[in-house]
Amino acid sequence: MEPIRQIKSGLYTDYYELTMAQGYFLEGMADSPAVFDYFYRSNPFGGGYVVFAGLADLIGMISRFGFGKEDLEFLERDGFDGKFLSELEHFAFGGTIQSVREGEVVFPNLLNMRIEGTILETQLIETMVLNVMNFQSLVATKASRIRQAAGDRLLMEFGLRRAQGSGGIQASRAAIIGGFDLTSNTFGGKKYGLKTSGTMAHSWVQSFDSELEAFSKYAHQFPGHCILLVDTFDTLKSGIPNAIRVAREMEERGESLEGIRIDSGDLAHLSKKARELLDRAGLKDVKIIASNQLDETIIVSLLQQGAPIDAFGVGTSLATGKPAASLDGVYKLSMVHGKPTLKISENPVKSTLPGKKVLYRYTDEEGFFRSDAMALEEEGEFSHITDPLKPEKRIEVGPFRRQELLVTVMEGGKPADLSTDPYQIAGYASRRLKKLPGEHKRFMFPQPYRTGISPGLSLLQGQLRS
Amino acid sequence: MEPIRQIKSGLYTDYYELTMAQGYFLEGMADSPAVFDYFYRSNPFGGGYVVFAGLADLIGMISRFGFGKEDLEFLERDGFDGKFLSELEHFAFGGTIQSVREGEVVFPNLLNMRIEGTILETQLIETMVLNVMNFQSLVATKASRIRQAAGDRLLMEFGLRRAQGSGGIQASRAAIIGGFDLTSNTFGGKKYGLKTSGTMAHSWVQSFDSELEAFSKYAHQFPGHCILLVDTFDTLKSGIPNAIRVAREMEERGESLEGIRIDSGDLAHLSKKARELLDRAGLKDVKIIASNQLDETIIVSLLQQGAPIDAFGVGTSLATGKPAASLDGVYKLSMVHGKPTLKISENPVKSTLPGKKVLYRYTDEEGFFRSDAMALEEEGEFSHITDPLKPEKRIEVGPFRRQELLVTVMEGGKPADLSTDPYQIAGYASRRLKKLPGEHKRFMFPQPYRTGISPGLSLLQGQLRS
Repeated sequence: MEPIRQIKSGLYTDYYELTMAQGYFLEGMADSPAVFDYFYRSNPFGGGYVVFAGLADLIGMISRFGFGKEDLEFLERDGFDGKFLSELEHFAFGGTIQSVREGEVVFPNLLNMRIEGTILETQLIETMVLNVMNFQSLVATKASRIRQAAGDRLLMEFGLRRAQGSGGIQASRAAIIGGFDLTSNTFGGKKYGLKTSGTMAHSWVQSFDSELEAFSKYAHQFPGHCILLVDTFDTLKSGIPNAIRVAREMEERGESLEGIRIDSGDLAHLSKKARELLDRAGLKDVKIIASNQLDETIIVSLLQQGAPIDAFGVGTSLATGKPAASLDGVYKLSMVHGKPTLKISENPVKSTLPGKKVLYRYTDEEGFFRSDAMALEEEGEFSHITDPLKPEKRIEVGPFRRQELLVTVMEGGKPADLSTDPYQIAGYASRRLKKLPGEHKRFMFPQPYRTGISPGLSLLQGQLRS
Repeated sequence: MEPIRQIKSGLYTDYYELTMAQGYFLEGMADSPAVFDYFYRSNPFGGGYVVFAGLADLIGMISRFGFGKEDLEFLERDGFDGKFLSELEHFAFGGTIQSVREGEVVFPNLLNMRIEGTILETQLIETMVLNVMNFQSLVATKASRIRQAAGDRLLMEFGLRRAQGSGGIQASRAAIIGGFDLTSNTFGGKKYGLKTSGTMAHSWVQSFDSELEAFSKYAHQFPGHCILLVDTFDTLKSGIPNAIRVAREMEERGESLEGIRIDSGDLAHLSKKARELLDRAGLKDVKIIASNQLDETIIVSLLQQGAPIDAFGVGTSLATGKPAASLDGVYKLSMVHGKPTLKISENPVKSTLPGKKVLYRYTDEEGFFRSDAMALEEEGEFSHITDPLKPEKRIEVGPFRRQELLVTVMEGGKPADLSTDPYQIAGYASRRLKKLPGEHKRFMFPQPYRTGISPGLSLLQGQLRS
């Protein structure tokens, strides 16, 4: 019943991972050690950061990655080699993964995850790493922006209907990690322990002889969580007056109307008028919930206009990570046969960094993030870092406190004891975002966060490129 | 192992479908007859049409929609009513669905699917209908645009790594329906019977002591399908000369190099230079494959520049339906308790059309599509239709041949005998697109296709709005 858990098939990969794996196997190289780096190249939404999400799902999927009888038969029909398929029959990922914690705030062109193992096993899981981490990080980042726009107001994720197929299930998890409170996605709720919520659609209102009857019946059914959708016919002339009547009936029964939802029209204007009407009727505690194609920009605008909205429902733009729609994460080989390697590209930003690396974060005395640096694992202390594309640009790191960001999340194929609770991960993300200075978080033209590479890594890169 | 088939859980829905369903049940209305319409409001990508896709998946999912023990326990903990949960225990969708065929070319604000049954069952499946159809139609439409740009050249879908989580599985199916030939998504290949393909990544090349050795080993391993990735170090100075050496070695063994792939740099320039070098070496049959952030616009531009590219690999923009990222399909109640109903919106385009409707397509003597019309089911012939937003605008349909587009795809809960083969559906889509006049297919500012409603439907709408 749980689709992610069910994707334990080793076929959840790009075909070329399998042809290459067979190639390594038949060349006798299958057990050669390799290190791959996962990182992304540019921040989505014109923003200044990414919230790293998807890790607990990924580690679960990797620990179940394997090939069933039907999978092997499929590959056999496609012409794969019999000896290679016998190898796959017993395949399990036995490598070691270091990663930043789920919910960490991360930056472009740094190391978010380091995957070590045999070339065969580290190659086979490439597509899964990218598929899971790119999408959940995209949506968690979007959600964190909407949280920033909405302040402390309640945020509900509504996106399953316009999500990208079954990707909507993971979207809801990532939305919670990025700061949402609730989701409408009931399947995701059960699967991941997310708090679910929802009341009525226009079809409920249309299914009764009158809007008043529809509201009244709903209030009788769900007195403890009654939110009435007021825009089916006419928000100000019909929906809100009827909601007020029902709220008074509820009060007489010792109950109370939780809120009204407005799903169309000018939300700034309608929410102000609705607040006036509700307040005048003595219903100051009835909340106003707004939905309809919202995103962080519209929410900022509504609040700047003084719209008295208590909660927002956000669907499409969140669940699909619009307008970016994808995060450009990549998975690049940095060590093979025990030696550092790199890819040189005609486009310098696409060149990769060699060697077994670690990631440091430098913080000031108040714990605010100042810069991140990649260094070689065996490298000692250093006082400055450089931009790999502009080596003349030195960033001093000496005065700051240094923290290592990678932790072991899988060792010899065994998952570490990781937090899988999305709300706990969300708490971590929220605390980390508080420590990112505001100039890197603003929506328009954020100041780029300072990142760089250590002297040792810079030297190694230079040696291998020449 | 197959995630879509596994999503038989009735929880794959928005929470409010369940609260409304309980409400209908406790009001004694659960068996009231209802009709819902599925349609979308605007064409994605600034285009002039949508390729309707996802139907076979959807019908399979609806026929498996139900509630397991764990699902009911989850809902019980959330406070749902015991009698309602007993009802859900035996729930199966028993309604009837009329739909345009999968692969049909469709237009905004018309009826693509009509769902009839009890209000309870038709309400519960809403989110699933929207989730499946919106996404697959989006991707099939994107694929059809890329096919239009690429002419007869081979098209490979590469998107799983940047797809939206497990939505990537459905993306590959929809890409084939829209006109792609092959996919890299091995899981999707097995699940849906899609042809899979893939050869090597940069990591293969980096895993050997030299590029030449990497190419040579691959050619020995896969002589029947050898495509060499030539841009790991330097496309023109290293990659292509090495590929030429290996091609000659293969010729001496009676084999032949299938192609080279260029994945970075200026694809127009590099493909021309590559063609020159290959031709000069007598390798006229070696194909040139291009990839790297392609979409229909870039492909048109490359071909206009005379780039001698034989095949394209397209990933992110296709699998995520960029830049649209979503199709705005909706599911609206049009009949309830045997009576037509509609929703009136302050935004006229969001008002809905009442009644049990059918969809006609008018074609000229050569079979070209001229206009589509919605009419009431019981309505006879009519000679003109009108735009519901501009009733004074009459479109004559009298002279054209009329075809009914909706067919029964599920009756009393039983799926009809539908085509599930993506290539067969793709063939239908391709034949239908050929009959859509070019002015509606162009990428920039297409001429809107003529659509409207019948006199009977127009009259009913007027009566219910007043």
